[in-house]
Amino acid sequence: MRATVMHAAGDVRIENVPDATIINPTDALVTVTRACICGSDLWPYKSMEPSDTGVVMGHEAIGVIEAVGSDVRNVKAGDFVVMPFAWSDGTCEFCRQGLQTSCIHGGFFGNEEIRGAQAEAVRVPLADGTLYPLSVGQDDALLPSLLTLSDVMGTGHHAAVAAKTRPGKIVAVVGDGAVGLCGVIAAKRLGAEQIIILGHHRDRIALAREFGATDVVSERGDEAVERVKELTGGLGAHSVLECVGHEQAIHTALSVVRAGGAVGRVGAPQVETMPAARESFYSNITIAGGPAPVRAYIEELLPDVLEGRINPGRVFDKVTDLDGVPDGYRAMNERESLKIMIKP
Amino acid sequence: MRATVMHAAGDVRIENVPDATIINPTDALVTVTRACICGSDLWPYKSMEPSDTGVVMGHEAIGVIEAVGSDVRNVKAGDFVVMPFAWSDGTCEFCRQGLQTSCIHGGFFGNEEIRGAQAEAVRVPLADGTLYPLSVGQDDALLPSLLTLSDVMGTGHHAAVAAKTRPGKIVAVVGDGAVGLCGVIAAKRLGAEQIIILGHHRDRIALAREFGATDVVSERGDEAVERVKELTGGLGAHSVLECVGHEQAIHTALSVVRAGGAVGRVGAPQVETMPAARESFYSNITIAGGPAPVRAYIEELLPDVLEGRINPGRVFDKVTDLDGVPDGYRAMNERESLKIMIKP
Repeated sequence: MRATVMHAAGDVRIENVPDATIINPTDALVTVTRACICGSDLWPYKSMEPSDTGVVMGHEAIGVIEAVGSDVRNVKAGDFVVMPFAWSDGTCEFCRQGLQTSCIHGGFFGNEEIRGAQAEAVRVPLADGTLYPLSVGQDDALLPSLLTLSDVMGTGHHAAVAAKTRPGKIVAVVGDGAVGLCGVIAAKRLGAEQIIILGHHRDRIALAREFGATDVVSERGDEAVERVKELTGGLGAHSVLECVGHEQAIHTALSVVRAGGAVGRVGAPQVETMPAARESFYSNITIAGGPAPVRAYIEELLPDVLEGRINPGRVFDKVTDLDGVPDGYRAMNERESLKIMIKP
Repeated sequence: MRATVMHAAGDVRIENVPDATIINPTDALVTVTRACICGSDLWPYKSMEPSDTGVVMGHEAIGVIEAVGSDVRNVKAGDFVVMPFAWSDGTCEFCRQGLQTSCIHGGFFGNEEIRGAQAEAVRVPLADGTLYPLSVGQDDALLPSLLTLSDVMGTGHHAAVAAKTRPGKIVAVVGDGAVGLCGVIAAKRLGAEQIIILGHHRDRIALAREFGATDVVSERGDEAVERVKELTGGLGAHSVLECVGHEQAIHTALSVVRAGGAVGRVGAPQVETMPAARESFYSNITIAGGPAPVRAYIEELLPDVLEGRINPGRVFDKVTDLDGVPDGYRAMNERESLKIMIKP
């Protein structure tokens, strides 16, 4: 089968790899209907050391189950499913609490152990806990938004939840990538009164406004912090969604949150230490978040997608087949594209 | 009047200073019935640069109001009051939320601007918001526990609240100082099922056990982490109270918390950055806490003190008059004393 293989920074190829198959009795084999390229795929795209074997990329997908292993009970061949970016047993202590990204027996897609979904098909371990069967058909109009439930919409929601977004509160969203934009959707959905997006890409900002952002801060660094303070009566935002992960963004997030407020971080951290340890302490800031347990959030978000109340699929600004994926990485890395959907 | 003046690291003297007086119409003048030396006073005791004027130390006290300014309405001369370590107006946005340590018009006792309470008397700014009048007399048996409501018991409680201590949960307390011991009291009070204290002073550990600690970890560093893991089925504690503030303690706290758990930090951080930014992210750890809004907690904790359900005053292992204070600093710094009460 054909799949997207990353060999080193900047080196992404479409190759023939051995077909995905059932290996364990708890596996499912899923034909990928739609996958996509994630902002977090750009970190290895920028920095991956050359690999002898390469890595089959991709951790977001919706697709159709072709076959299941003999121990699989909750899903069956023919089911149309969401594949969250983490696989999980659904039964361990962490899964039962809704923290599937810490599943004791689980893991992530798109690495040297478990191949990813930017491919014609994907083996899904622990299918019973991992896959979420949709009760709808493969309605084309909804596919993009359904696909976002595998990561980016659930991740934006996680940032908003971790940042304690509540009705009437002021939310700042650091980052205008696809996760930041989904964070805007999530903040509005949770009742935020004022939603400030920090970003400087004109088209993304325009989309953020359509999603519910009330204010835009396009300055950077200290000027951005000052501008958020101006917009919030000098106090800062109650809730800050950190949707980038690099040091400047983390620093900005911790600088624009008000005393007693919370930062929900979902950008994969590109730092070893968190800045502003004293400042965040003396202001009683809560820092929370991490990899989103999107599996837990599908239940809550799906009705809003199905009934059209949210439309996170609008973050996709381009669709490609597998052949177009290497150029898709380039385009996203150069900020020419926001987020690319793959139709294998 | 006589007061405790710190001039430099290791240089604490009892001196005659100008009498405390009413300066602003919102002030109260309080005669100090009891004060004490705080673990956080030991940071300047170790490191303070020589000062021309010196600093009148002390931020914990109970006492009797001698006089109030013309704008004071909620308290009056003769009231027996708790003086929380932060002064606050009680009316600003943060005070109304119960975060008096971030009061827009407030501040802290025991610095170059506002003199401290290790003295015969103290001027209390914003008396209406700051002071908590007690409805009890100066009952000697309860004075030590009432005094802890000005800081150390409220601080331990804050750590437990920030760490999301809930009935049935496993709590680890990093540090066996007076705050850590009050953290044990708070964890038990909030219903924790297992309370692990990390510390290695025999007498403090014994007191921790009396307060409700179920397990003791006296190892340090990686061995301590391993031991906590053993005691928690390999998963770590749900809630960790970081009651020290130095880097090793913060690192330990972040290492013994389980995925999805929370660290409540109340030790004044002696670091610029927080370690383990990635590890805490990938495990979805919540980091919260800061200076405790003890003013907000008095309401909740006072009945338990008055009715004898908690007895945090047991953290005081010595009482001295003002003359004994310099030696008290030495004794606490050398871990000869746990916490010293001052009867001016």
